[in-house]
Amino acid sequence: MELHVVINGRKDLASQLYQQLRDAIESGRLAPGTQLPPSRLLAEQLGISRKTISDTYAVLTYENFLVGKIGSGTFVNARIPISRRKQSHTDFASAELIDYWHNLKSPLRHPTLEGMARYDFIGGATVKNQFPDEEWRRCTQHALRQISNSRGYYSQPEGLPALREAIARHISFARGVVCVDDDVVVCNGAQQALDVIARVLIRQGDTVAMEDPGYSPARLLFSAQGANVVGVPLDDEGIRVDLIPDGTRLIYVTPSHQFPMGMPMSNARRVALLNRAQQLGAIIIEDDYDSEFRYEGRPTDSLQSMDDRGNVAYVGTFSKTLLPELRLGYAVLPPAILEAVIIAKQLTDCHTSTLPQWALAKFIADGYLQKHIRRCLGIYAGRRERILARLNSDLAPWFDVVPSTAGFHMAVLCKVPVNIALLIELGKKVELGLYSLAPFFHDAESKPGLLLGFGAIETLDIDPALDRLKSLLNQLS
Amino acid sequence: MELHVVINGRKDLASQLYQQLRDAIESGRLAPGTQLPPSRLLAEQLGISRKTISDTYAVLTYENFLVGKIGSGTFVNARIPISRRKQSHTDFASAELIDYWHNLKSPLRHPTLEGMARYDFIGGATVKNQFPDEEWRRCTQHALRQISNSRGYYSQPEGLPALREAIARHISFARGVVCVDDDVVVCNGAQQALDVIARVLIRQGDTVAMEDPGYSPARLLFSAQGANVVGVPLDDEGIRVDLIPDGTRLIYVTPSHQFPMGMPMSNARRVALLNRAQQLGAIIIEDDYDSEFRYEGRPTDSLQSMDDRGNVAYVGTFSKTLLPELRLGYAVLPPAILEAVIIAKQLTDCHTSTLPQWALAKFIADGYLQKHIRRCLGIYAGRRERILARLNSDLAPWFDVVPSTAGFHMAVLCKVPVNIALLIELGKKVELGLYSLAPFFHDAESKPGLLLGFGAIETLDIDPALDRLKSLLNQLS
Repeated sequence: MELHVVINGRKDLASQLYQQLRDAIESGRLAPGTQLPPSRLLAEQLGISRKTISDTYAVLTYENFLVGKIGSGTFVNARIPISRRKQSHTDFASAELIDYWHNLKSPLRHPTLEGMARYDFIGGATVKNQFPDEEWRRCTQHALRQISNSRGYYSQPEGLPALREAIARHISFARGVVCVDDDVVVCNGAQQALDVIARVLIRQGDTVAMEDPGYSPARLLFSAQGANVVGVPLDDEGIRVDLIPDGTRLIYVTPSHQFPMGMPMSNARRVALLNRAQQLGAIIIEDDYDSEFRYEGRPTDSLQSMDDRGNVAYVGTFSKTLLPELRLGYAVLPPAILEAVIIAKQLTDCHTSTLPQWALAKFIADGYLQKHIRRCLGIYAGRRERILARLNSDLAPWFDVVPSTAGFHMAVLCKVPVNIALLIELGKKVELGLYSLAPFFHDAESKPGLLLGFGAIETLDIDPALDRLKSLLNQLS
Repeated sequence: MELHVVINGRKDLASQLYQQLRDAIESGRLAPGTQLPPSRLLAEQLGISRKTISDTYAVLTYENFLVGKIGSGTFVNARIPISRRKQSHTDFASAELIDYWHNLKSPLRHPTLEGMARYDFIGGATVKNQFPDEEWRRCTQHALRQISNSRGYYSQPEGLPALREAIARHISFARGVVCVDDDVVVCNGAQQALDVIARVLIRQGDTVAMEDPGYSPARLLFSAQGANVVGVPLDDEGIRVDLIPDGTRLIYVTPSHQFPMGMPMSNARRVALLNRAQQLGAIIIEDDYDSEFRYEGRPTDSLQSMDDRGNVAYVGTFSKTLLPELRLGYAVLPPAILEAVIIAKQLTDCHTSTLPQWALAKFIADGYLQKHIRRCLGIYAGRRERILARLNSDLAPWFDVVPSTAGFHMAVLCKVPVNIALLIELGKKVELGLYSLAPFFHDAESKPGLLLGFGAIETLDIDPALDRLKSLLNQLS
């Protein structure tokens, strides 16, 4: 075998050789099991010392790229973990589809907590220092006892009866959702609820309509399932129902607290939306992700409670009220699709893990969730008030606040031209985490502005954070 | 408004009226909010007493189907839970697709534990009385501490680093899988691993090849994703590689312990399969669901360990080694699709719940899993031996055992004609749970036989159970 190695000049001979051999192995050009030339021969061929060769072989052997077999020579290790080789997916029949998935990476990325700034307005993070550790521990003990008494088999795809009951009670009370236990399907967070509902309703090429700007992970999910996702513009009252196209099979909305803008959907718009869905024979997904936190005005009930024709699938989550990493959410389904969604859930992952399910059922039934929501609501209300006070006073020259009444983020739109991308970059330098609204606009024309989440930032940090923001804005003007 | 009610004869007037009104409300013929005729008028119209009418209204009001408004009359409740109304899905644009899902119900059904017989040869159930409650409790405490220290946000889509490391070590050791931590993606059981892998490889109409007979939930899943699933026949060495069609993008196999037949794939067949996949540019899913339990012969390594070109995605589960209801499994992925699968997992449900993840990581790292597997292996080996002893002696006139070396079920084929469906029905009457092989055959011609699982049946119950089986067989002959 002729080994193709090119040595340039007389410098770094060992590292040149090392890198070329390693590349050849990782890329598969030097196939696993291939015998390498004896160091003496390769030294002659390349005109470098035999010691350089054998030292390089030794390093590569130490790193498991090569393996020495006594009496027969040095070979490319046949058992290099595949992952240590660079491998392209272009040799695969599904290359194009794999490409598609790779391209979702950056729009889907959650900002990592490790990268979180000292003063961070990230959305979706909960007020962690309030997490009721002791109550949750007690409920998990209960879960362990239940599992200990179980029979070593699968649980129900639709969720544990105890949890379905607890959820039905919680959302009847907290959100005016009209349902009984049997309407509830437990999922791994709201995202999986969207996945299983969309699976039973759409095939390649079917139209899904959603708010634009809107919740990107939902858009990416429906697209990845093959849907033709149409972004429908918003006005002050919510989604422009008149622009929902004919042929739409699924409509995704966030009526209580539009994501990301924040305004609630008006009553008239809700009625129009329900009628449009009925006319289309479409299902509406009402994603009610954070409306347990409500600050002012008369509580608006869910869209689901206005639906008397079975067009609304209500989706909720405990990621906002409890903890995202527990991955617990649910869907309340109209009769036409309930059974089908349960089957889709079973086919997807059989059912949600019973360990967190039992714990949450107990946590809700014992009243801890309501207590926890009340406690967090107080904290979020204080933060919200502080942010609004500043936005309505010294930050007013730059921003308009989009009016909202629920949740724990708000959207602000620029009144004057601000380079948001630059603002965010400058923010990082003063330990300030800012987030643009831009990634949530798709077909609609992007409005420059910020999404200000107040789950992660401490109340006392708000003023220093907004001082920094103001000073950056002054700098940019 | 004319209410359409028909009263026949003079008997059960109240219940006739009740049922018709209720049906009208549930079916939506009497729409929510509709006012009912005053009892006096309806009494005249139907020629029955006013008291019968008002009593019936009272019952329906009590049941929330009707609501009385003082001074204005009786109305159909606008807030009847949708689920209490009968609603057809045929009005929906997606009616055909919803039908499709409904039709999956019966092939997908797990036998329920509640319906389990005193002597039950169900597959997939684990030996529950061996579950290490105390160790698992300790590991869950550890999990709670970790969660208590976390920051109220999402975790990694690919799984917790601690668990990926524990899994990589476990399967390198137990199954000769060639991998490092970074190759591992944690999923909600093997079923979700299949789901996310198939998502990144197949679109509507793409061909998936799998063993026939084979694991039905995998077939149903791939089909529901729009794949053209081709059943490839088996011989004694495993899947007939020569019959895998051109254009196949994904090949699903169970090489260690073919499901449901049980024979391991021969070495020659493995080599042929790897070559065929390479030639097709296809990915092979190696579902190694229960091969930690191995009884005889030299341990066969995984197919994945023979793959030096990155064609094999190895899938495993803790449903068999620990507990199905925890929903913990994993995939070890070749570099070409690793990143894409992580993205698909994130899009599907963000990540697996950290509560069971942390507990399992600790459980494996502390050596409890290995200990538990050894303990169960001893029990399963005893049961297997007892069943084989009977099959090779007094049950030999009826059945041939398909040779296998791993897992906790075996397949037996009828030597003489036996009406399996009748046998199963008769079994139920003597508290014997038997399962046919038939549901696992798809395109291939079905061979009459039984799948005998020995996870649920106690060792001491095996002889009485097989006595019952024998007596039924005698009855049927």
